[in-house]
Amino acid sequence: MFTGTAWIHPVLIILSIIAIFFAFANFSNIKKIVIGRPMRSKELNASHNKLFWLIALPILSADLYSSVAYGPEAGISELAYLGPDSKWLVIPITLTTVVLLCVLIVSYIMGVIAYPNGGGAYAIAKDNFKTSYMSLLAASALLIDYVLTVAVSVSAGIQAIGSAYPGISNYETLLAILCVFFMLVVNLRGVSESASIFAWPTFLFMASMLFLIGFGMFKGTQHGFVQPTTPPFGVAPQGLTILLILKAFSSASSSLTGIETISNSVPVFREPRTKGAIKAYITLGLITGITLTGFAFLLYLNGISVNPNNTMLSQLLIVYFGHGVIYQIIIWSTFIVLILAANSTFTGFPQLAALVAADRFLPRALTLRGDKLGYSNGMIVLAALSVLLIEAFNSRTDALIPLYAIGVFVAFTVAEIGLVRRWIRVRGRLWKTKAAINTIGAILTFIVALIFAITKFTGGAWIVLIVLPILFFIALSIRKHYDQVANELRIDLSSMKPMEHRVISIVLISGINQVVLHAVSFAQSLHTDVMAVYIGFDDDSIDKIETKWRDWGDPCRLVTIKSEYRSILYPVSRFLSRVENWEGGKPDHIHVIIAQFVPKKWWHFGLHNQTSLMIRTWLLRHKDVVVTTLPYHLRK
Amino acid sequence: MFTGTAWIHPVLIILSIIAIFFAFANFSNIKKIVIGRPMRSKELNASHNKLFWLIALPILSADLYSSVAYGPEAGISELAYLGPDSKWLVIPITLTTVVLLCVLIVSYIMGVIAYPNGGGAYAIAKDNFKTSYMSLLAASALLIDYVLTVAVSVSAGIQAIGSAYPGISNYETLLAILCVFFMLVVNLRGVSESASIFAWPTFLFMASMLFLIGFGMFKGTQHGFVQPTTPPFGVAPQGLTILLILKAFSSASSSLTGIETISNSVPVFREPRTKGAIKAYITLGLITGITLTGFAFLLYLNGISVNPNNTMLSQLLIVYFGHGVIYQIIIWSTFIVLILAANSTFTGFPQLAALVAADRFLPRALTLRGDKLGYSNGMIVLAALSVLLIEAFNSRTDALIPLYAIGVFVAFTVAEIGLVRRWIRVRGRLWKTKAAINTIGAILTFIVALIFAITKFTGGAWIVLIVLPILFFIALSIRKHYDQVANELRIDLSSMKPMEHRVISIVLISGINQVVLHAVSFAQSLHTDVMAVYIGFDDDSIDKIETKWRDWGDPCRLVTIKSEYRSILYPVSRFLSRVENWEGGKPDHIHVIIAQFVPKKWWHFGLHNQTSLMIRTWLLRHKDVVVTTLPYHLRK
Repeated sequence: MFTGTAWIHPVLIILSIIAIFFAFANFSNIKKIVIGRPMRSKELNASHNKLFWLIALPILSADLYSSVAYGPEAGISELAYLGPDSKWLVIPITLTTVVLLCVLIVSYIMGVIAYPNGGGAYAIAKDNFKTSYMSLLAASALLIDYVLTVAVSVSAGIQAIGSAYPGISNYETLLAILCVFFMLVVNLRGVSESASIFAWPTFLFMASMLFLIGFGMFKGTQHGFVQPTTPPFGVAPQGLTILLILKAFSSASSSLTGIETISNSVPVFREPRTKGAIKAYITLGLITGITLTGFAFLLYLNGISVNPNNTMLSQLLIVYFGHGVIYQIIIWSTFIVLILAANSTFTGFPQLAALVAADRFLPRALTLRGDKLGYSNGMIVLAALSVLLIEAFNSRTDALIPLYAIGVFVAFTVAEIGLVRRWIRVRGRLWKTKAAINTIGAILTFIVALIFAITKFTGGAWIVLIVLPILFFIALSIRKHYDQVANELRIDLSSMKPMEHRVISIVLISGINQVVLHAVSFAQSLHTDVMAVYIGFDDDSIDKIETKWRDWGDPCRLVTIKSEYRSILYPVSRFLSRVENWEGGKPDHIHVIIAQFVPKKWWHFGLHNQTSLMIRTWLLRHKDVVVTTLPYHLRK
Repeated sequence: MFTGTAWIHPVLIILSIIAIFFAFANFSNIKKIVIGRPMRSKELNASHNKLFWLIALPILSADLYSSVAYGPEAGISELAYLGPDSKWLVIPITLTTVVLLCVLIVSYIMGVIAYPNGGGAYAIAKDNFKTSYMSLLAASALLIDYVLTVAVSVSAGIQAIGSAYPGISNYETLLAILCVFFMLVVNLRGVSESASIFAWPTFLFMASMLFLIGFGMFKGTQHGFVQPTTPPFGVAPQGLTILLILKAFSSASSSLTGIETISNSVPVFREPRTKGAIKAYITLGLITGITLTGFAFLLYLNGISVNPNNTMLSQLLIVYFGHGVIYQIIIWSTFIVLILAANSTFTGFPQLAALVAADRFLPRALTLRGDKLGYSNGMIVLAALSVLLIEAFNSRTDALIPLYAIGVFVAFTVAEIGLVRRWIRVRGRLWKTKAAINTIGAILTFIVALIFAITKFTGGAWIVLIVLPILFFIALSIRKHYDQVANELRIDLSSMKPMEHRVISIVLISGINQVVLHAVSFAQSLHTDVMAVYIGFDDDSIDKIETKWRDWGDPCRLVTIKSEYRSILYPVSRFLSRVENWEGGKPDHIHVIIAQFVPKKWWHFGLHNQTSLMIRTWLLRHKDVVVTTLPYHLRK
């Protein structure tokens, strides 16, 4: 009955409901159960939460290191259609990436030295440029790329699993979305307490990859490196152009995203933190370089081809180990580490968004910390946007890659230029060397960003090049708005004091019953002018209420209005306009009291309150009136 | 970049937003533009809106007559896999359907005579059974089938277009959903004013079908009826079973849905309305009978086979007229008339839902008429549910048919039994004949419903057989709840009068500024006990506010609370619990005043109010407090 991906839609709807639930569940008890115990502010900086560098390394490197699983494949995929002659190119392309990796690692060590309190591209740019444009450019680029990191990493992770279990291929989008939701829940629970657990899968994946490379090399020394499957080396395949090589190179360098994570997170290292971060950077650079080179070499040796249903890593594993236990371990650790890469973004994105929001460039709501000290709103935004991307691109890594990494390289460039400016300004020991390193870094990352924009433009990069300036200008106008509001709200404490106003209270009634008794009692307790207003659709009901009101002893003035259009809003609106010009002069406040049922069971809510909800929302939007919601708790 | 149906998801999201917009747009000015001028209550029954029977006929018959486009095909599809030998069975199956049609038409004429004010199955059952169970059964069954009518008709309509333009086959689901949204908008605009326009496409379709049959017959008399393509007649194909024949018959009788529309709508006929309705029924029965028989005969003559990508009607048209103008006209009128069939449901469903809701079996919100005198909420519910069905079944008519019609035949049976009971009770002229007719009708429709349930059970009817009782019991518990609430709210006018209560007003502040000045002024105008409450995340901010408050002249008591968890809700909640037991005895009302920014531009709304929204929602859910929203209109 349901065919193929048809299930996805209902499931999506359910998931959206869950997401909405979580978005609004800030105030719910359920959150406590699902999300866990709230943390105190103090715990945020407690030293027992600080990490030894060898533990911090895998936690902070999941993003960078996991990309080895798809980076070289993304590069060579661009050339696959040129035939087997192109296979050897995986080696020079990967080597170029490794050179770029080294430059970036050294540049970022400079960043760690300059900003031992953790300086992302945003903080570095803020510190070293006079205008806020550069920092905002870096922030916009990074925020976009964080969303893409989640989409790409999760898609690649699911693809890894799909290589091992082809049966799930119809459900990849669904599974990817489920992963994002799972991460959202985990992260709303708070991340640092679970952080050490996150170290082990990355360790396992690193060990697996190094083992794979070692095993391949060992086999090579035993049985000869060149196999019957090894394609020719150094032959330029027909149709190869510079543009194609650049395209392949830029796709491959998507494996360099995430390199900034350690420098952003220096404060999580145990003291001496700068040293720890530098050690972590050097170790990570070495391991990633070795892995990339070795992996590319083995791919070439075994003549692995691109296959959308079976990742190159999976194919290589099958060549060496078949479908056995080792294969399963490496595939699953690939999956987990890719999910962790996405997961690390759930810390990075909300933190950056909160920093930018604290500078009033993004909605203030992003600075509100949840009960678990994480920025819940930022996490929800990230999850929602990445789910949208995964849906739109059917969780296809190859379709997402062209959008990816361009933002990161823009941010890299801004950060490097910022560091150069800093060395020139601050000077200090070896400042010329440092400035030179960052200048080289700046030039290289700028060139890479440019190559990205040009070679990937039609493939999807145009989307980023449109969204980036839009985000940039939205941020600027948000800042402008907040500045204006702050000006508007400022008061002079000595001259502007509270004073009594004239208030007219209006009670909307639909009959005479317990609720109305309650509402009129409340209104009369406020000692303001009180009026009851009834809207009837015909003369009969109006006559009836007027008689009943008299019988009740005319507790306050009753105004009845006949609504010919059966509408409630228009008559209320017209009446309010009349009150505004009541008996010589507008009252200072018109105060509308609306009763609302609070049912015992949550599902009863849909059976009541539609009208009051409609009136309240409309009044707050369209009229300058004070609206009071008076709850009436139903006993059943 | 986007592949295949990938676009559907983003589009769906956009459409959902539009739907939500319309759901909440009751209070919006935009509605006036899109939906048009509101109508007065009087216009509802104005005689100039009444219809001559020949105009009413096509308007009310789109639902029934349009089914000829898919009914015979749905029937013979069940046997298609038996090979060409089964093709002749389209004739006996269709003839059985026509016999059933005659019985139903006659039974429904009895219904029109009995209920000249329009009596659907629900009204008939309500009038003739002591318990409300039977009427509720009929209503639940009909509501489900209305949703299916929209899904099936729209899917079949799009399929007709897809036969002519195979290029759209990837987008059928999307197009079907767009159709539903279009109908929703048209119907929110109000339907009767546009009703006469709706007559012509059905006229055109009727004329086209009769022309097609006439043309086929004429050609038969000229060139001989039996063609080389005519399959053998009367040969039982291998593998034919009684169950299969019953299955084919029940699928084919899906073309009888919609027969109840005229009897529901007697009041829209110009006087003498009963006569008009009877004339319409007889004419419609004749035309439908001729069309079904003739169409089936021509299908057999030309040996048309079932083809999921090309409807049998389209194939038949190609045989006679090629792909020319006549083909286009008939295909498009098929499409339009199927859309009109779905459209008629946009009147039927909300009306029935409003009737049932007026009897307090469904949420009261369904009885609220929109500005155009249509029941907007019912329409939105119908559109949402049918979109869900279309999505879940990928707009495949053959997958939806097994769910369809079972509800209608359940409702038919209830209505027929009700009429029998009525004739026995009321008697009158020829009552025995009338009772006999409806008894036969009841027995036949009951048998058909049974055949449906059995033969289609595994094919999808089980869904209906699960949803139906669920809906039934939900309706019963809604009624129980409303009855309890009504009891609870009743008061004694003579003894229970409003009286003054003790109120404590609490102003939540986040600093001292214009907004706070405004809020404290308002609170002090109410002559209640006023307290300002400030929640700080650290000692510094608390000291600062206390100093500033003193400098401001201590306008009212200030309470400061330190929130170590950076949460706002928990400290507020704890504080309110303390106030509840304030200085000897709980106050009658705790009154929380929350300021809310009203920005000039709608998109600024997201930049403010998140905290106040969160607090307000939480307070209303979890605490017995009165919440006042004090708008502060920003100037920029």
